Amino acid sequence: MYTAAVQDLIDELGRLPGIGPKSAQRIAFHLLSVSKDEALRLAQSITAAKDRVSWCRRCFNIAEMQASLQPGPGLPPPVSLDPAGDAGAVLCDICRDTRRDPKVICVVEESRDVVAMEKTREFRGLYHVLGGAISPIDGIGPDRLRVRELIARISPEGVEEVILATNPNIEGEATALYLTKLLGHMPLKVTQLASGLPVGGDLEYADELTLGRALEGRRTIGG
Amino acid sequence: MYTAAVQDLIDELGRLPGIGPKSAQRIAFHLLSVSKDEALRLAQSITAAKDRVSWCRRCFNIAEMQASLQPGPGLPPPVSLDPAGDAGAVLCDICRDTRRDPKVICVVEESRDVVAMEKTREFRGLYHVLGGAISPIDGIGPDRLRVRELIARISPEGVEEVILATNPNIEGEATALYLTKLLGHMPLKVTQLASGLPVGGDLEYADELTLGRALEGRRTIGG
Repeated sequence: MYTAAVQDLIDELGRLPGIGPKSAQRIAFHLLSVSKDEALRLAQSITAAKDRVSWCRRCFNIAEMQASLQPGPGLPPPVSLDPAGDAGAVLCDICRDTRRDPKVICVVEESRDVVAMEKTREFRGLYHVLGGAISPIDGIGPDRLRVRELIARISPEGVEEVILATNPNIEGEATALYLTKLLGHMPLKVTQLASGLPVGGDLEYADELTLGRALEGRRTIGG
Repeated sequence: MYTAAVQDLIDELGRLPGIGPKSAQRIAFHLLSVSKDEALRLAQSITAAKDRVSWCRRCFNIAEMQASLQPGPGLPPPVSLDPAGDAGAVLCDICRDTRRDPKVICVVEESRDVVAMEKTREFRGLYHVLGGAISPIDGIGPDRLRVRELIARISPEGVEEVILATNPNIEGEATALYLTKLLGHMPLKVTQLASGLPVGGDLEYADELTLGRALEGRRTIGG
């Protein structure tokens, strides 16, 4: 029905998560109708992101190439943790920030979880991004995650606490359990984010699992 | 929160219609996680579409540059309707198809409406894409649409019937009314798509406007 270039564009847009055939068509026609500059800005931002963004060689958070090649004033030059490793590998902004406490590592599933944690402004340690969670159904075992890289950081970096901040669902809990066992014999504290009632939530509408966890994790506040 | 390249990508994705901030973030992380080849295929399809797709100089449907520069076997070379016009302007596949009846023009709002009409396989004439509908609220008057270009086609192309296929909503109806008055004094038939019950629909759930139109446009089937 469409000419080749338009059909290609619709097909490629349709591969994106959450974009169905109708949305892909709508976005394609939007891109055809806007100015060439505006449409090419999107194309260029994709190319730029793929060219410049890689994974932090220490915590596997997203990291930008440019930032490490041209360190800003006050930023220390990247410290190589692995002198034999890839010379092109970069450190993320958080790992390069010397004001942060390297003795506490918060383990999360994905880079976007780092952003969620950072928004709280409560955590001043470093991160470790696993790249997913254990999920036997999807064929994802611990070997597919950055577990080995986490273990390798503990002793050289003098880590004293590992905070498990995986998602509070089956896969995340399984991952936390696996890591707890693995880290159990090491001389460090392993903690997990509290489960309980969300702030601003309504006790009446909380599901029984969440309410059960809130009861289990109740705190003494007096008496 | 994000590095510059990632934030740029999220911002550009967020400009697309129907993509909110959360979807933009999700798509950005998807693009960062897939292979470079796959992500660049999307960037290239945007660039290719903007480079090769333009508007048909006759009906203003989308048209592909490449197809006109390298005409396939059996296709006539593009006929210039406007010798003084842009030499780079192309004809769309439908206008170049000599088997179609140039005496009937179906007027639609957008290129995607051409695709919808073509899917019926019932129409063998040509099209005219207005590029929108009259909408005083949005400041879109007849001068912003390709109305002048439609009028200019009637006499040189020997048009005998104009089918108004604008959307059955306020803007589309206003556009149809405007065109009916404008074409009224010309020696041709002006028709409009039938309004009524959608096939497979349920009379009980039809809104009163649609049902009213169905009654108004009732056909004699016997007696």
